[in-house]
Amino acid sequence: MALRPARREDVRRIVEMLADDDLGQSRETLSGDMAGYYTAFDAIAADPNNALYVWEEDGEVIGCAQLVFLPGLSYQGAWSAQVEGVRVDRARRGRKIGEKMMAAIIEKSRAQGCHRLQLKSNNQRVAAHRFYERLGFAKSHVGMKLDL
Amino acid sequence: MALRPARREDVRRIVEMLADDDLGQSRETLSGDMAGYYTAFDAIAADPNNALYVWEEDGEVIGCAQLVFLPGLSYQGAWSAQVEGVRVDRARRGRKIGEKMMAAIIEKSRAQGCHRLQLKSNNQRVAAHRFYERLGFAKSHVGMKLDL
Repeated sequence: MALRPARREDVRRIVEMLADDDLGQSRETLSGDMAGYYTAFDAIAADPNNALYVWEEDGEVIGCAQLVFLPGLSYQGAWSAQVEGVRVDRARRGRKIGEKMMAAIIEKSRAQGCHRLQLKSNNQRVAAHRFYERLGFAKSHVGMKLDL
Repeated sequence: MALRPARREDVRRIVEMLADDDLGQSRETLSGDMAGYYTAFDAIAADPNNALYVWEEDGEVIGCAQLVFLPGLSYQGAWSAQVEGVRVDRARRGRKIGEKMMAAIIEKSRAQGCHRLQLKSNNQRVAAHRFYERLGFAKSHVGMKLDL
């Protein structure tokens, strides 16, 4: 089992996990035109500070996460890492896969020299907040959004 | 007056604004080695999805903001925009400079085709939260961090 960079042929499987989610089911499509997902995959692959990962066990993809490295002037020019879209296959939950996946994400952020790993989680995802608090994350910020 | 891309010679002025802040003053240095800031400036400049801007009026830099474009699979492969490090010179506050700067940032995010503009703001920055709410931002997420 390991975290490995996602390949183009993993896109449908990743979208299945994004869609099989209380908030995600109304946002995603698996039956319609999936071209937008492949265009996005290519944009992530073209960005050297952006990577999409999957968690594979016994040849099966059962988790995903996206990791972004953000250069910035604050903190004397320190890099931050940001993790997005962390999902574990619903049928495989309760087996610490999320913990193992996040441990690998944290290790990659450290290896890049980032001073912090940050994330935002929808206010409604209370179980996710507890999960991240168990891993040592602090609820330090308010996450705000403007739909365009 | 206008938002324009920051140049290398703006770095000290930007750091002055980042440092002249309740939370920033303990994080930044203007007297010590500033090499980290210039390295970070170069890293931002090298990233096509990342840009540092300043707000200039009458030849003087009195505001700054960083804008990041994030490709992702969620929302059928929609791009998000993220704004960081929004600061206005303390002596120029109360003149709607922040509002004008954010209007320009929102316009750039729309022009890039982003479906949303997001930000995180430290829990302690209550006045900033009210500022963003006036602009239409919703407190939709919890922002979490892990210091590495």
